Amino acid sequence: MELIPASHPRAKSLLIREKLVNGFDSGIVAKEGLMAHGRGEAFDYLLGEKTSNLAKKSTQAAAAMLLLAKNPVISVNGNIVALSAKEIVQLSKIIPAKVEVNIFYASESRKKNIVLMLKKNGIKTVLGLDRRKQTKIPKLDSARRIVDKNGIFSADVVLVPIEDGDRTIALKKFGKKVITFDLNPLSRTAQTAHITIVDNAVRGMAELVQACKKLSKKNESALKKIIRNYSNKKNLSENIIEIKKNLTRRAIHG
Amino acid sequence: MELIPASHPRAKSLLIREKLVNGFDSGIVAKEGLMAHGRGEAFDYLLGEKTSNLAKKSTQAAAAMLLLAKNPVISVNGNIVALSAKEIVQLSKIIPAKVEVNIFYASESRKKNIVLMLKKNGIKTVLGLDRRKQTKIPKLDSARRIVDKNGIFSADVVLVPIEDGDRTIALKKFGKKVITFDLNPLSRTAQTAHITIVDNAVRGMAELVQACKKLSKKNESALKKIIRNYSNKKNLSENIIEIKKNLTRRAIHG
Repeated sequence: MELIPASHPRAKSLLIREKLVNGFDSGIVAKEGLMAHGRGEAFDYLLGEKTSNLAKKSTQAAAAMLLLAKNPVISVNGNIVALSAKEIVQLSKIIPAKVEVNIFYASESRKKNIVLMLKKNGIKTVLGLDRRKQTKIPKLDSARRIVDKNGIFSADVVLVPIEDGDRTIALKKFGKKVITFDLNPLSRTAQTAHITIVDNAVRGMAELVQACKKLSKKNESALKKIIRNYSNKKNLSENIIEIKKNLTRRAIHG
Repeated sequence: MELIPASHPRAKSLLIREKLVNGFDSGIVAKEGLMAHGRGEAFDYLLGEKTSNLAKKSTQAAAAMLLLAKNPVISVNGNIVALSAKEIVQLSKIIPAKVEVNIFYASESRKKNIVLMLKKNGIKTVLGLDRRKQTKIPKLDSARRIVDKNGIFSADVVLVPIEDGDRTIALKKFGKKVITFDLNPLSRTAQTAHITIVDNAVRGMAELVQACKKLSKKNESALKKIIRNYSNKKNLSENIIEIKKNLTRRAIHG
């Protein structure tokens, strides 16, 4: 493969793209995952490719909810592991939370590669591979319905960093609190989740690690107050306004 | 691979995605091409996933410009061939125009697979493989600078269906009229090209074939009039307004 020309104005974005390509080459990312990343890139571009104050607000609420949870689970797929394996492991230790692999396009070997990558980054246990512990989330068609009895199935809060709308809806109907990263504030995932962090997962996961570190020193009532003062609906609306502002700005200066 | 659940609300978009995946499996589409497609999908979503009247206007102007050209060339890459091989061949016969393969991530075998796919769809000659005829477009870093002396190098009008901004700028500086498909009306490609068709290439190429068929019956002065009455700047601005309207509409009804 040719090197990315340094003069290319999207060089930074192309370099993140290479992380996904490497993830694909290591059997972690699905072909469809490469395309899903592209969709995220477009929204990131419209949001100005930076972590907004709106995203920081959602991150605070997400950290509080994860720290208050009795049985929090981080659900991971190929894309998030290709982008943020280190941060997933850090997060699972700070909260602490279980980690479960759960992918849209079923593949046992890809699941194993994902687990391997997380183990390389220092995690001991990843759920989702043991067939004896598998059960189903009701009202879900895709391969993602298969979950671990002790993981997502019995979780109270699930962090689903990069998600499809179907599963978010099914998890919510099943009584789970859902926290997600989604760069598209209009998506069903974004609109359905309890807390939607509208940010690039590469930047956002690092932010969430920091927020959990800081907030882990606060008491329960302080954490509950953060959640009480947070409105996901309002945050998403403000993100849409932000995109519209950026469109106007770019149209004028572009 | 698991079948796409029919209940999935993005099933149609997922099926087009499968075309790209098939193109990847046949060695036509690059991994980066899968991601680029995802970016297009996001903008298509924001534009309502339909061919707008704005796109139809640009298509008319593009058809007129291609029909008036003395040496028009259709520059193709993996993505456009995976999506629209049949339409590329039809278009090259109607205008008539030469077809040249020109890709961002250099790979001789991918080039050959692209040519093979076009030949399967009934084309006799595709430029871009013959090293003896290769020369360079000035002021361009990427592998795309290598072009055929009798193709893009000596063309007056170049149709570049899915493009990077660098090459559009370089081609324009080199004196070419550039027509492009770009779903992002803010991109450098969109802003630089003489005519930008803001539409999904799957839909847009079929439209362009029809427009060329119809307009091929018109005389030179009628075609010139269509171009004179077309403003790319205005069309792009209106596309940006359209996205903003769609954002508002989706935010309300979403």
